[in-house]
Amino acid sequence: MSDQDPLVLFMPSGKRGHFPVGTPILDAARELGVYVESVCGGRGICGRCQVAPEFGRFAKHKIESTPENVSDWSAKEARYVEKRGALKEGRRLSCSATVQGPLVIDVPADAVINQQTIRKAADTRLIDRNPAVQLCYVEIDEPDMHKPLGDLDRLKDALEAEWGFEDLLVSQHLMPLVQKTLRAGKWGVTAAIHKDLESSRPTMIALWPGLKNEAYGIACDIGSTTIAMHLSSLLSGETKASAGTSNPQIRFGEDVMSRVSYVMMNADGQQAMTKAVRDAINDLITQVCEQADVEREDVLDSVFVGNPIMHHLFLGIDPTELGGAPFALAVSGAVHTWASELNLDMNEGTRVYVVPCIAGHVGADAAAATLSEAPDKADEHTLLVDVGTNAEIVLGDKHGALACSSPTGPAFEGAEISCGQRAAPGAIERVRIDPKTLEPRIRVIGAEQWSNEDGFAEAVESTGVTGICGSGIIEVMGEMFLAGIIDADGVIDGSLAAGNPRVFADGRTYSYRLWETEGGPDIVVTQNDVRAIQMAKAALYAGVKLLLAKHGNTSVAKIKLAGAFGTFIDPKYALVLGLVPDCEVENVKAVGNAAGTGARMSLLNRDHRRDIETTVRKIEKIETALEADFQMHFVNAMAFPNKVDPFPRLEMQVPLPKPKVLETVGGGASRRRGGRRRG
Amino acid sequence: MSDQDPLVLFMPSGKRGHFPVGTPILDAARELGVYVESVCGGRGICGRCQVAPEFGRFAKHKIESTPENVSDWSAKEARYVEKRGALKEGRRLSCSATVQGPLVIDVPADAVINQQTIRKAADTRLIDRNPAVQLCYVEIDEPDMHKPLGDLDRLKDALEAEWGFEDLLVSQHLMPLVQKTLRAGKWGVTAAIHKDLESSRPTMIALWPGLKNEAYGIACDIGSTTIAMHLSSLLSGETKASAGTSNPQIRFGEDVMSRVSYVMMNADGQQAMTKAVRDAINDLITQVCEQADVEREDVLDSVFVGNPIMHHLFLGIDPTELGGAPFALAVSGAVHTWASELNLDMNEGTRVYVVPCIAGHVGADAAAATLSEAPDKADEHTLLVDVGTNAEIVLGDKHGALACSSPTGPAFEGAEISCGQRAAPGAIERVRIDPKTLEPRIRVIGAEQWSNEDGFAEAVESTGVTGICGSGIIEVMGEMFLAGIIDADGVIDGSLAAGNPRVFADGRTYSYRLWETEGGPDIVVTQNDVRAIQMAKAALYAGVKLLLAKHGNTSVAKIKLAGAFGTFIDPKYALVLGLVPDCEVENVKAVGNAAGTGARMSLLNRDHRRDIETTVRKIEKIETALEADFQMHFVNAMAFPNKVDPFPRLEMQVPLPKPKVLETVGGGASRRRGGRRRG
Repeated sequence: MSDQDPLVLFMPSGKRGHFPVGTPILDAARELGVYVESVCGGRGICGRCQVAPEFGRFAKHKIESTPENVSDWSAKEARYVEKRGALKEGRRLSCSATVQGPLVIDVPADAVINQQTIRKAADTRLIDRNPAVQLCYVEIDEPDMHKPLGDLDRLKDALEAEWGFEDLLVSQHLMPLVQKTLRAGKWGVTAAIHKDLESSRPTMIALWPGLKNEAYGIACDIGSTTIAMHLSSLLSGETKASAGTSNPQIRFGEDVMSRVSYVMMNADGQQAMTKAVRDAINDLITQVCEQADVEREDVLDSVFVGNPIMHHLFLGIDPTELGGAPFALAVSGAVHTWASELNLDMNEGTRVYVVPCIAGHVGADAAAATLSEAPDKADEHTLLVDVGTNAEIVLGDKHGALACSSPTGPAFEGAEISCGQRAAPGAIERVRIDPKTLEPRIRVIGAEQWSNEDGFAEAVESTGVTGICGSGIIEVMGEMFLAGIIDADGVIDGSLAAGNPRVFADGRTYSYRLWETEGGPDIVVTQNDVRAIQMAKAALYAGVKLLLAKHGNTSVAKIKLAGAFGTFIDPKYALVLGLVPDCEVENVKAVGNAAGTGARMSLLNRDHRRDIETTVRKIEKIETALEADFQMHFVNAMAFPNKVDPFPRLEMQVPLPKPKVLETVGGGASRRRGGRRRG
Repeated sequence: MSDQDPLVLFMPSGKRGHFPVGTPILDAARELGVYVESVCGGRGICGRCQVAPEFGRFAKHKIESTPENVSDWSAKEARYVEKRGALKEGRRLSCSATVQGPLVIDVPADAVINQQTIRKAADTRLIDRNPAVQLCYVEIDEPDMHKPLGDLDRLKDALEAEWGFEDLLVSQHLMPLVQKTLRAGKWGVTAAIHKDLESSRPTMIALWPGLKNEAYGIACDIGSTTIAMHLSSLLSGETKASAGTSNPQIRFGEDVMSRVSYVMMNADGQQAMTKAVRDAINDLITQVCEQADVEREDVLDSVFVGNPIMHHLFLGIDPTELGGAPFALAVSGAVHTWASELNLDMNEGTRVYVVPCIAGHVGADAAAATLSEAPDKADEHTLLVDVGTNAEIVLGDKHGALACSSPTGPAFEGAEISCGQRAAPGAIERVRIDPKTLEPRIRVIGAEQWSNEDGFAEAVESTGVTGICGSGIIEVMGEMFLAGIIDADGVIDGSLAAGNPRVFADGRTYSYRLWETEGGPDIVVTQNDVRAIQMAKAALYAGVKLLLAKHGNTSVAKIKLAGAFGTFIDPKYALVLGLVPDCEVENVKAVGNAAGTGARMSLLNRDHRRDIETTVRKIEKIETALEADFQMHFVNAMAFPNKVDPFPRLEMQVPLPKPKVLETVGGGASRRRGGRRRG
């Protein structure tokens, strides 16, 4: 290009350059690094390369862009419209429209398919798109007896000549299909090329006759409790469907350690659990494909994350070594394999990428969350916490990051809590306690009203009020502390029992009666429940303290709470109880399923895979079990923070409902409590 | 190294260099490019790196090599001998013995395992060894909670640090085995690394606890009629076992074209034949492993060759396109895949390499034969001919080579010949005809005596004399021509019938009665038989002429006859009949199963794979069907060469046996002939 040639400006990137008259706009974009997709290689049949020339005097850029400065509507474009339907007003196919003079070219958002908005619980982000699988349409020479190169060999030559793939490997299952596909496509075919690592040769993994203009990928987060999956277009980045299911391994053990025990006790335990999780994943693939009306053969790439034990069981690896010190991972690095190797039912050539694990207790899910939330790239000191049976904690900034896992136990998930339960309709998720009357109001999953609002009774009629879920436990503990029912040491104040029936002697200690229902057991918070939460939050806090100390810091600027627990708890109560260190409340954010977001990022952009692989190697791993200070931090963190309520109390705007449940307090309640003790 | 350092001379290569005192001899060898194997990486436990220091004054090389100039017997060597038994007299472990002064080091033939003698029918050759699979023993760090790198990741690090394998891929099936193997080996394991193409990342394909000091590969030639397999040590190159079996596809069709027809007529025809050939290969693997007392899991690499249709059916590819013009190969380039992809039962990580095809009628077998016989690298003009239903012909010298296939039909294999049969006990393979009496003598497969020698009758008692095999047909035709029974145009001279009962009227033409047995049909050579052989030899010769013309030459200096046909025919008769162009008879050589030799070369040295891949691309392919001159050459080649017997006649040293079979000539023989005509 020379300065004498017309200037072309691409928006919104602002990239610009001079191009000779006659240059296709697509070529100009590519030369400037403006990403415009194309499947058909400029043949004007895929329609992926649309742009919108803008006309007028752009004084700031010193360009006068006129309709004469772009080539006339071409026969190629006319044929496209005839076959595939009209383009949006003002759009051109950039492979066909050429530069005839100075131009301003808008690359529309729906065509800038290298960037895709992913909406998350707390924020919105763009994922640059650079997927590991690319569709490439080519037309190849017919067979020639004078040059008896095989059909596949000529196809490879065309892919090298038109798309630059040298030394292409070919998935074995395609060998028997090549000839029929080429003939069905009348020597025009679309190949799916997998190119992930720069050091690996690209591989042809699928082949269709004619133009194939869409391909999909799945991102899957294998949680101990729930498996979640998203189906995304690899060409637009758009999320087409999402689904989740319970992890069927639960029947072998509620938490991961009991699943490891199951493997140790049963000869085929690992095989059974591996099969269970893969079957569930196959079911989810069916679900997301049905939702989006997509053939499962069109799913060409996949990314999986999970904690180390889920990771191993998914890959068919015995997790026994993770059950005890030194918690040796069989493999910590990223795993690249084929879906067929794992009996996953997608296209026969579909690849699997498994995000690397950070350490024996800090898995691929934590790595993916780190990719998503990037505490290791933050300007300010950032804490990322994903709470499960273990809390996975990453702390850092752009100068370095540390990670550890802290044995919080299952209390935060509602286990080990007398009235705890999993998040499900009927579970208490929100609690407010009047500090004067100690009267509670609650909100229940599945009902929109607070318990003091009209319609509550009707709303919970079908489910009842059945227990307290994880976020509800945090709230009730926080409210009990704020209302003075428990003191800083976590003791339920028995002296209140005399003046208020909500607090009552329960053996040698006291309990708080949160809710009573006819026919069901009381929902109470016992001294043991408080102790369990204290232990859990002390473990979490001690882990954070350990990382802070290792990092040479005492405070954090931002806290990101990941995962279901992080999403549903109110950050205020996390601060009230001292789950996390002091921080401005507005800087404590729930970031949703950050692991799932990281998985989707890895699906849509292979650069993110390299990024997290590098990050995982760089993160300093702290094994809490080996740290002498951990126990000290733990003991110090048992107490609740000694401070006043930092938040303006919610006004009790509506009168408390008539405490009808109290009417039945008498023998019935005692009987039910007695019953529970016997249970 | 500096000139001040002691000089070390390696024999027999003569490579030499100066090395500091204390340099291990293995390191000196490696630095000079003298290939000495090592599995254990210099730990003194594999014993593969043995050398023999030689002592004395080597005046020519100006070296005085003394026992003091090599280090004393080491603790490492003592431990090796204690554990594995004594070394041969004078041998040292080169990883342990060091340079202490000027030395002459002999690398013994049994340790020069980069070179292996392969004995062939006609010559003996060395194959430089550089297999695609390498065994590497490593010791890895135990797991460390402070550095929670996975077990597999630490293993990969060790393989990179000790053996230089960067970015190692790992076969998925090893993932679940790594931890148990490392622990079983007490953190010492042997990995099998597959590294074939430079452009592909090396892959770990197998793993054993402790030191694994042997691995094997198979080379397999899939013929339409016979499948032949060799089992070789990848570490010594030695051939451990060989076996062959009939190709079970014969039940779907005797020749390749009838098998293509079967596929076209039967929906699951290709699948059935693919399964048949793979099953047969699996049976052969069982056989060679049993012969050599080798576990099939220790077979880690494999190479396959075959004609294009065998090649396609083996790979599971429908060969229909090869059944008609333009004879399009699905894939012509080399195929790299996994044994498990082809349902071949070896180690789960075993690789498959399939030699490239040259053209639609010139297959991987011809390519392998070209690798073995290297007509494309010859100083003199060399012709390589492999005769089957098609003759595959390669002609060339170091300036260039051409290849074609010529449709000889099955006559050379005994089909289309009235008394033709496959080579089997009872078949006539050698014939001599007395030019005066026209009396024949024959030799039969399974009998050592000529028919005029004592013991012949007893030797053929169990089998009888049942027909004429391919090489016998060439001989009887040649002898009939030399004896004047047929003229240069191939006409059986009816005028002889009057004076000799051996020649008799047979319908409108004449036949020659070669043999008569009681109870069986006469073995006769008919005019049609002569015509069939004329057609076949004309096709072969026309192909050669075409290549000669294309190459701008009229003669060849060397002729190599490959395959079973080439092995068993007497080159003299090939010249007599004009199967091949004129050439000094001593320059016409049977080279045995050159395709099988080429397969073994590819197995033992991946450089040979690159070599044949390059060669195949460079060879000029001639499609006879497209060449106007082919028909002319064909017509011109129908006649037998117009010349006198170039060979001294074999003396009929023993009197001809009493022609007892003639005693039964009367009605019986006529009846049998009549019977044949009706059949």
